[in-house]
Amino acid sequence: MEYYQLNQDNLVNYIQSLPEAKMSFSSFDDLKVQEINDGNMNYAFVVTNNQDTNQSVFVKQAPPYIKVLGEDWPLTRQRMTAEINALSYQSKVCPEMVPQVYYQSEILSVLIMQNLKKHTILRTELIQGRYLPRLAEDLSIFLAETLFYSSDFALSSADKKAMVDKSSNQDMCKITEDFVFTYPFEHHEMNAYNPALSQSVIDSIQKNPNIRAHVAHMKYMFMNKPQALLHGDLHTSSVMVNEQQTFVIDPEFSFVGPMGFDIGALIANLYLSYLSHAHKSSAESVDYSQWVLVTINDLWYKFEAKFLTLWAEHELFSQNAFMGKDLSGDSHQTFRNIFLQQVFSDTLGFAACEMIRRILGVARVADFMRFEDQKLRAKLETQALKIATTMLLNRQSYTNIADVNKLAEEASFS
Amino acid sequence: MEYYQLNQDNLVNYIQSLPEAKMSFSSFDDLKVQEINDGNMNYAFVVTNNQDTNQSVFVKQAPPYIKVLGEDWPLTRQRMTAEINALSYQSKVCPEMVPQVYYQSEILSVLIMQNLKKHTILRTELIQGRYLPRLAEDLSIFLAETLFYSSDFALSSADKKAMVDKSSNQDMCKITEDFVFTYPFEHHEMNAYNPALSQSVIDSIQKNPNIRAHVAHMKYMFMNKPQALLHGDLHTSSVMVNEQQTFVIDPEFSFVGPMGFDIGALIANLYLSYLSHAHKSSAESVDYSQWVLVTINDLWYKFEAKFLTLWAEHELFSQNAFMGKDLSGDSHQTFRNIFLQQVFSDTLGFAACEMIRRILGVARVADFMRFEDQKLRAKLETQALKIATTMLLNRQSYTNIADVNKLAEEASFS
Repeated sequence: MEYYQLNQDNLVNYIQSLPEAKMSFSSFDDLKVQEINDGNMNYAFVVTNNQDTNQSVFVKQAPPYIKVLGEDWPLTRQRMTAEINALSYQSKVCPEMVPQVYYQSEILSVLIMQNLKKHTILRTELIQGRYLPRLAEDLSIFLAETLFYSSDFALSSADKKAMVDKSSNQDMCKITEDFVFTYPFEHHEMNAYNPALSQSVIDSIQKNPNIRAHVAHMKYMFMNKPQALLHGDLHTSSVMVNEQQTFVIDPEFSFVGPMGFDIGALIANLYLSYLSHAHKSSAESVDYSQWVLVTINDLWYKFEAKFLTLWAEHELFSQNAFMGKDLSGDSHQTFRNIFLQQVFSDTLGFAACEMIRRILGVARVADFMRFEDQKLRAKLETQALKIATTMLLNRQSYTNIADVNKLAEEASFS
Repeated sequence: MEYYQLNQDNLVNYIQSLPEAKMSFSSFDDLKVQEINDGNMNYAFVVTNNQDTNQSVFVKQAPPYIKVLGEDWPLTRQRMTAEINALSYQSKVCPEMVPQVYYQSEILSVLIMQNLKKHTILRTELIQGRYLPRLAEDLSIFLAETLFYSSDFALSSADKKAMVDKSSNQDMCKITEDFVFTYPFEHHEMNAYNPALSQSVIDSIQKNPNIRAHVAHMKYMFMNKPQALLHGDLHTSSVMVNEQQTFVIDPEFSFVGPMGFDIGALIANLYLSYLSHAHKSSAESVDYSQWVLVTINDLWYKFEAKFLTLWAEHELFSQNAFMGKDLSGDSHQTFRNIFLQQVFSDTLGFAACEMIRRILGVARVADFMRFEDQKLRAKLETQALKIATTMLLNRQSYTNIADVNKLAEEASFS
């Protein structure tokens, strides 16, 4: 079979041809196809059985170009292979947190999977001020399990290298290198500044050699630190939630990179959410903004605790520690602490880059963009840039997330 | 053709079958084969034309096991593919510093190359106290050129990733992970301690949680920092010299790893050479030990200067800088300085691991082993361990090599 484009007309036929689809539908006689226009990169459809509307699947296909830009913007379909690879891995280590895959084809670059119709995008919930009591716990499990089990602490060095090779996602990494770490910092034509954001604020980032050097250093680490299989784009629109469940979706940027890049993406977007609530004077908003800070705090500490537990248990069970035998009784713990402090610094550095690119780059976020008042937005953006640059330049000195939360609170009063 | 073992009997026939060998020999009628027994891993031969003994070649073949240990110690022949790959790369960027390759076969895991008969192993020259005025200059050129041109600053991210894939050398990396970064620190059965070295000195390394944690961190970096195509085993027996020329040989451990690993291996072995001369009271020895320190100093500064020049020139010429456009005029330089400081810290950390493993591990070096007096050796070993642990733990604070030289001098008086 060769690649062809699925569409409203041929999708039912395609599904009917797949024995695997019988698991999802009691009958193929009356399937309805609905195209979903949310995504920028890929085509997406929901296929529902009209005879029993509880039966539905989500179908995602990567065309050999960027969907919203059209065939003049070619992009290899490797991204779907990477997504298939990442989902396969994530479903092994934390199956309850990723959509179930019913069928996948690298030839068609297609995934047929669980339709999360009872869940909402996390960013939307955050904007609406909904409390999500499971969020920090669930996301910390996802981070600890996916990052630990693909690290050198769980894999032999041969298996680790095989994972690096298999998970190559060159084109998508290049997009991140350009759109996260480069263009927002060089006054690129693709940047879309808020007209109310003063040039001096923009210059204070783009023309500050120290900030530019540290951003370049983070870019270099993104390219040269293959620590674990990442989601690769773990912002708050890559998470779907309801009160019972948390799902992580869309790992099409997945590759083997620095752990702090995934954690940092989440934390960055949570700080943007924090600022979007903290500036309002209502008690409700203040309370919610404080909940966001508590969530950031819990997310880090729970991640750290779970990662350390997985590590200690794995080495105890396998009788094979990364650093060799511990002759003093506290060498393992000392190394683990040094390692986690490094992941923490990286997290702050990557979070900073993510916050800045969401303000100076092309890809804005609804948390701020929903405010039509450009001056208000400029105020929030300036606060976010202040937090980001301090985090970036002092990432090696911060030893706990509570101090970063304090920084965010101070910035929100400015 | 399938793999078969070359030996004294069949090697002449093999060479006669290669059209490429006609470049090296005016006649195939009277070739003499001499087996060279220096190496541990591979078979090596010199083939000479008896009709004109100026005509000779060096032949190296990797068997599917470790030569000195025999067929019971299997080791893939990937190491010869890695050596072929590294020599091919090195001969492009600094052809004057690696032996010329006349013929190579991945199928036979064989290299036929320039016979360096007018050159001596650097370690031998250092032991004999010979001044080598070109050494720092030449080695700094080798390091700057091989490390720069295989880095993200010279290659596109696609070309860099292709190089990482192509240069995989898993089995040899595993040997380094075990024999450099693990066994010497855990009282492994393969370690060979000097009987005169006190247990308390050995314990001060192996049972020190802080040292163990930092060594583990260096091991992790060795495995997770694919910065440039390394030689991978750049100690002073991997360099051949005479007064006119410097050659770097035997890159069978080559892979894409942290720049500081190559520089550190050289510097570590130079510090061992320094200590082996500094303890003698003769003016001659003192002078020579000072020359070794000057060489270390020059090696780093010349490397740094050349690397920075290559980088600046490349970005000027290509009009394409790693970090994007420089809007302030000094952002590029600030990043380059941060980057080189990082390479310097890594260099000290890797040099420290190399020094320690040469004392506590299985692979000792002649610089110390030539002293039959075990107590004298124990004194030098203790000095070396002192330098190494200080370098390791303070690698982020040192900002120049002169201060590390001072540390070495102080240790040599103890």
